[in-house]
Amino acid sequence: MRVALLAHEQFPDRAKTAVGVLRYSDHDIVAVLDRDSTGAAVSDYLPDVQDAPIVSQMEDVPECDALIIGIAPIGGGFDDSWRPDVRAAIERGCDVIAGLHYLLSTDDELRDLAAEHGVSLRDVREPPEDLTVAEGTASDVDAQVVLTVGTDCSTGKMTTSFELRDAARERGLDAAVAPTGQTGIMVAGWGIAIDRTIADFAAGATERLVKEADAEDVIIVEGQGALTHPAYSGVTTAILHGAQPDSLVLCHEAGRETVGSYESFALPDPKTYAELYERVAAPVSPATVDAGVLNTYDLSPDEADSALSEYEAELGVPVTDPVRHNAAAILDSLLE
Amino acid sequence: MRVALLAHEQFPDRAKTAVGVLRYSDHDIVAVLDRDSTGAAVSDYLPDVQDAPIVSQMEDVPECDALIIGIAPIGGGFDDSWRPDVRAAIERGCDVIAGLHYLLSTDDELRDLAAEHGVSLRDVREPPEDLTVAEGTASDVDAQVVLTVGTDCSTGKMTTSFELRDAARERGLDAAVAPTGQTGIMVAGWGIAIDRTIADFAAGATERLVKEADAEDVIIVEGQGALTHPAYSGVTTAILHGAQPDSLVLCHEAGRETVGSYESFALPDPKTYAELYERVAAPVSPATVDAGVLNTYDLSPDEADSALSEYEAELGVPVTDPVRHNAAAILDSLLE
Repeated sequence: MRVALLAHEQFPDRAKTAVGVLRYSDHDIVAVLDRDSTGAAVSDYLPDVQDAPIVSQMEDVPECDALIIGIAPIGGGFDDSWRPDVRAAIERGCDVIAGLHYLLSTDDELRDLAAEHGVSLRDVREPPEDLTVAEGTASDVDAQVVLTVGTDCSTGKMTTSFELRDAARERGLDAAVAPTGQTGIMVAGWGIAIDRTIADFAAGATERLVKEADAEDVIIVEGQGALTHPAYSGVTTAILHGAQPDSLVLCHEAGRETVGSYESFALPDPKTYAELYERVAAPVSPATVDAGVLNTYDLSPDEADSALSEYEAELGVPVTDPVRHNAAAILDSLLE
Repeated sequence: MRVALLAHEQFPDRAKTAVGVLRYSDHDIVAVLDRDSTGAAVSDYLPDVQDAPIVSQMEDVPECDALIIGIAPIGGGFDDSWRPDVRAAIERGCDVIAGLHYLLSTDDELRDLAAEHGVSLRDVREPPEDLTVAEGTASDVDAQVVLTVGTDCSTGKMTTSFELRDAARERGLDAAVAPTGQTGIMVAGWGIAIDRTIADFAAGATERLVKEADAEDVIIVEGQGALTHPAYSGVTTAILHGAQPDSLVLCHEAGRETVGSYESFALPDPKTYAELYERVAAPVSPATVDAGVLNTYDLSPDEADSALSEYEAELGVPVTDPVRHNAAAILDSLLE
């Protein structure tokens, strides 16, 4: 799919979705729209992802199939300064894909225009309407199922999922991510935002993702939240049981000792957390924490090495920081 | 509140909601509508609950404030043979309360009639629209918070919750149930069907229930599902962390060894299950399994005694069957 990425005034540092799509998606990115950086190229900012020109408006974008809204303002609103580009994309016959709280499909003007031009407006936060309860049959798939779990939110589960997929593909394996959150869905082009499903159907939605993931060898399920998070543990548990994983990767941020935004709650240490994931998983489908990921973004190289050694000694399984180093280091232990 | 209960052709054996309301609610039941038992009284069938006449239609009901639909056909549909009574209730100025999948508020005729007569149609399965994520503050309430948890669905969590409330009230304590499912909501006249909330808001909805429960001494939160249920564990975990309980009551059905309707999954033994609830609860809010409830409905009196002894020895805390015996037996250990 040939894609244009809308990231006005925010590329690259405040355009996480756009950068995620550039880094991990299979799409052919034909242009990034950012009126503040017109004339530059993606490679001027990000040398290690696919290159594309940065343009100021949809009229300057080469032929393409879809426009992805690659930025998300706080609150998830739709910025009306984007409207001319969205309109132009629709008029050119492009689908428009967004993960905003504001649903494009409820915007009268855009909906009518899309109908007129026969294109889709895809609001990826909206779960499908035909979800049901889990049957407990995700483990029927032939592929190895790996689930990224965390000690907290924002520990690198999404990044780890795609890095593991790419490492597996580099080995010649047929691998796919089953995306459970909006950015993952934008990157992969499919998925379900599990946190927006009806609570009773969250495990069933995860089960569906595992069964629909198109990979013969490895399916990496993107986890959400954390098992003892004060607000999001329900989503985490539904994914753990719905996915019926074979292996777990425990993602942790170096130095984090309390729950993010819930600072009165201490985090259990990672080893305790790993055992708890295994004990809760076991009655539905036995899974073991076979690898760890440590986010060392805030550390110096020496500090990071030392933190990784400590984390590995604590968990007793191979660990890595897939951004600083690479995910291939933990692939073997997950696929054994 | 003066209430009429609609239970046509199904009272009492197939009218669980009506019976629950008769047994546990604070409402003044002025009549039961069942055209198959006209002329009889509730006491002819259920000697131990409040009495009321059984009538054939709304016209024969004494003055009242609300009509509750006290039966739920498989599939949760609305039976059109109920329509004349629902219409008559609205025309008399009664609110109508239902827990059906079919929402009364989407029925054009009933909605228009209700607007005309200034009454409410309350579909208790529909969660409020202003739910948010949990703050992790349910434990701020002064009352002791008890949560009924289970080894499976249908182990007696709702019944235990109301029996515990009544036992506490008999001791002169100010006690309330925080209802999380449709029958509990019908009985108590308030609550949120947690399994129908958006997954991200399930813990937050539970937290709101605990804070809104109107009781100074004891709040009993009605649990749902089970912690390692293949389909419903997400709802269970969200309630466990959202409620921040002080004490847990583990409900189990005597002899059950596999998950109901998911027979390929073995149930962990109750002691293991109790420890797992405690371990998962601890990082958010420490709670201990301080009592057990065993559903011995299918056993002879001797078998029940023996099963209760065995269950008590296994859990190491006081246990009871609150239907066969009574809930007062476990109240002390929950309130210590």
